[in-house]
Amino acid sequence: MAKLKAVNIPEKLSMVTTHWDPHVVAQYNGNDIMVVKFKGEFDFHSHPDTDDFFLVLAGEVILDGEDGDRVTLGPGELCVVPKGMTHRPRAKEEAMVLLIEPEGEPNTGDPETAAKKPRI
Amino acid sequence: MAKLKAVNIPEKLSMVTTHWDPHVVAQYNGNDIMVVKFKGEFDFHSHPDTDDFFLVLAGEVILDGEDGDRVTLGPGELCVVPKGMTHRPRAKEEAMVLLIEPEGEPNTGDPETAAKKPRI
Repeated sequence: MAKLKAVNIPEKLSMVTTHWDPHVVAQYNGNDIMVVKFKGEFDFHSHPDTDDFFLVLAGEVILDGEDGDRVTLGPGELCVVPKGMTHRPRAKEEAMVLLIEPEGEPNTGDPETAAKKPRI
Repeated sequence: MAKLKAVNIPEKLSMVTTHWDPHVVAQYNGNDIMVVKFKGEFDFHSHPDTDDFFLVLAGEVILDGEDGDRVTLGPGELCVVPKGMTHRPRAKEEAMVLLIEPEGEPNTGDPETAAKKPRI
């Protein structure tokens, strides 16, 4: 049985119709590799036990940090938000993102409000 | 001091002039996020203790596995080679890849022959 599988990211993104709703497309050492569409403003939150990896594939994403810290990411730009740092992702227009977080990590930092992260 | 940093992948790739020579551009939970240019055939090898993450940014990459297993990856396609699986990356023409491996992991699977993985 083939163990090597190609994951086509644009194809996976075409299956996602909601915003702020990460979908798992692969796994790496206990981390979820996810595609997600951003539009509007997410809540400020933090992940006390993990870094948070964002790679913008299309559109523009702003990450607001603490004390006025901020980055704007266009296609082909990535940012790793350090563990424990409060941050807020936002996108004026729809943006496409590759996200990496440990399996089971709530995307909001809080299991109560977290998205389900379905596998596609 | 700003903790959020944008890493522009094409800009980083423009600094890489060699093949099969991963350069570290960011870190995520003890993993190196690397850019690398492939051209020609790498050696068959395995990583006994870790999965191996490949995302093709430009060009075409073939991953040969065991028992005739093989995938061809174009831009926007990723593959995670399972821990311990023997594989060989190759590219007929130059290809650009985002690679993720744990910090210190030899890219060849063998510290004796591994590339240095400089930080850029």
